[in-house]
Amino acid sequence: MINQAMLALGQEPSSIRELFAYGLARKAEIGEDKVFDFSIGNPSVPSPAKVGETLTSVAASPAQGVHGYSPAAGLESVRSAIAASLNRRFGTNYTARNLYMTCGAAGALAIAIKALSEPDDEIIVNTPFFPEYRVWIEASGDTLVPVPMRTSDFQLDIDALRAAINKHTKAVIINSPNNPVGVVYSEQTLQALAQLLTESAEQYGHPIFIIADEPYREIVYADVTVPWVPSFYKDTIVCYSWSKSLSLPGERIGYALVPDQVSNFDQLYAALCGAGRALGFVCAPVIFQHVAAACVDEPADVAAYARNREALTAIMDECGYEYIQPQGAFYLWVRALEPDARAFAETAKRHELLLVPSDSFGVEGWVRLGYCVAESVIRNAAPAFKALKQDYE
Amino acid sequence: MINQAMLALGQEPSSIRELFAYGLARKAEIGEDKVFDFSIGNPSVPSPAKVGETLTSVAASPAQGVHGYSPAAGLESVRSAIAASLNRRFGTNYTARNLYMTCGAAGALAIAIKALSEPDDEIIVNTPFFPEYRVWIEASGDTLVPVPMRTSDFQLDIDALRAAINKHTKAVIINSPNNPVGVVYSEQTLQALAQLLTESAEQYGHPIFIIADEPYREIVYADVTVPWVPSFYKDTIVCYSWSKSLSLPGERIGYALVPDQVSNFDQLYAALCGAGRALGFVCAPVIFQHVAAACVDEPADVAAYARNREALTAIMDECGYEYIQPQGAFYLWVRALEPDARAFAETAKRHELLLVPSDSFGVEGWVRLGYCVAESVIRNAAPAFKALKQDYE
Repeated sequence: MINQAMLALGQEPSSIRELFAYGLARKAEIGEDKVFDFSIGNPSVPSPAKVGETLTSVAASPAQGVHGYSPAAGLESVRSAIAASLNRRFGTNYTARNLYMTCGAAGALAIAIKALSEPDDEIIVNTPFFPEYRVWIEASGDTLVPVPMRTSDFQLDIDALRAAINKHTKAVIINSPNNPVGVVYSEQTLQALAQLLTESAEQYGHPIFIIADEPYREIVYADVTVPWVPSFYKDTIVCYSWSKSLSLPGERIGYALVPDQVSNFDQLYAALCGAGRALGFVCAPVIFQHVAAACVDEPADVAAYARNREALTAIMDECGYEYIQPQGAFYLWVRALEPDARAFAETAKRHELLLVPSDSFGVEGWVRLGYCVAESVIRNAAPAFKALKQDYE
Repeated sequence: MINQAMLALGQEPSSIRELFAYGLARKAEIGEDKVFDFSIGNPSVPSPAKVGETLTSVAASPAQGVHGYSPAAGLESVRSAIAASLNRRFGTNYTARNLYMTCGAAGALAIAIKALSEPDDEIIVNTPFFPEYRVWIEASGDTLVPVPMRTSDFQLDIDALRAAINKHTKAVIINSPNNPVGVVYSEQTLQALAQLLTESAEQYGHPIFIIADEPYREIVYADVTVPWVPSFYKDTIVCYSWSKSLSLPGERIGYALVPDQVSNFDQLYAALCGAGRALGFVCAPVIFQHVAAACVDEPADVAAYARNREALTAIMDECGYEYIQPQGAFYLWVRALEPDARAFAETAKRHELLLVPSDSFGVEGWVRLGYCVAESVIRNAAPAFKALKQDYE
């Protein structure tokens, strides 16, 4: 009577959502300040003032149709403004025709995967990985092929990728700055990946795409820069969201960028438009299209996350946890103190620490700490982290 | 290399979109007031003041996370407010658990169809019908079965529906007030449909759903009321949007309502959640969830459309066109003056009249006039309608 795959997805337990719900209930029970909730990626930094100003100004506009339909791909003026900003930053030559506005990076990824999908396709993801990749890949009828990142530095494992590629490989999804690990893929990594995919595409006689999932592009620390993937590899689709840079995750605004250089540009862009229709998107929310255009050069407020990173890693150092130093995003990837990360997360819960076990991201033995929280949460959590460590000594 | 079905969808010509684009170009060429554009359903009435006030107030809120993720189904408080409003209007007992917030009715329909879809499913639509139904039905792997409405009054043809139902029938989509015809299905029609589906469900041993697509529910004229479909038939999913009632089509806010009474409520609701994930929706835009809750009892501004309806039908009467008197929505369904509606629409274009040929809605011989336009467009179009009529005399 009901689609069993959709039912399974709807009923699938999610550690992140369950922890988040548990946290809300627990806070109501024992007090907001007694629970140290590192479970989710809801930005703690308020949106820049310009977001509110743009919303207010659009809302006050007497223009008829200010909330009317935009073209499915988005308003031409908005796409032009975004293209111009990318061109200033990356020395590119994009125009409105390279952009397709979406309901966040999730919309962009679901659309891009659907647009590319053919029978027997395989899509490679690098583990640990954002769990919804599996949902969109399998919903399109494709097979997810997990390839572990190098455990030494969590850069891409080019040899492992080479071993995983075959004639069915349609795309590799990369996510840099990375959720959950916080790594930024280096130019060297991207060069090696581009070379591998160029050779493999030639070997198998069809393009192999990079789908670059980049919602954290602006959230980077110290002097780290995020290389622009299409500069390294022609068959790249960039999926972006303003969820993190402008603290707008609930508003669903992002884009898919398809450079002119991709194989069969016209067909690929048309297939994106078709996939947007098929999945039930009509257009990205118009008022946030205006916000995106107005804020396109607005700097992300990284300072707060940088302070949090310092504070949290200082506690980890003091307690003696092993972790990966984040170059970007706002997650800390910490080695669990027992092999079973779920059991470790349960133990952490007894200290009111809400940490996401790495099983959610396709690997064992780690936990993810989202540090997009008030700095006080981190400072107040120090004794709990200490006590948790002591449980294992 | 690319999904051929998505490519075909993306490249598919759409009379409505093409006419709309033609209209924009033509207006730029010969002047805004010289083109009589009846091509699309973009509401001409501005949003109520409360929409802008809510946007401004949310934008000005100092609360952290005001633009943060909501649960996938939507904010509990918002869903409760909508449930309470429905209960006041329809004497029902809904709660937040009956509502799943979506990116407009399109999102709700795509999700509902996907949630129900099993192999070999057939979904019945009543022609003429909104063309995207086919897209979502076929994207889910289902077969669209068109059943013509009665041509006498465009109520549902129960005998024809009976003949079309078989063991593969999963659902019937109904749309009242109707796009493109403007009819509102009567209580008598809904009773007959409910009886037919109840018998058929028993005969075939599985539920047959009504998917009630209701974005025009509040746009009705004179003393017409729109019956509440779940009061007539238990296995009903209502798909709603504020696109038309609050003039917010570009902002993508609506819901799917699943009453407790439906067969396997828990599973069906879970499957909706699963389908929302699979299609790439994360949550409906949060700020417009707040707007929907704030404006849940805000009356739609029907007066302007009522005036337009009067003005347009007066012109039709004067010129001698045959049309269906609209009870709701803002479309006039007019008999083309030659059997080929596309050819008729081309002739109309020579008089700067942009009318959508009925082929877009799965039937021949009619055109749709969207009268959600400035009243002046209608008044100024009178000579053009007259001249068009004379072309055929």
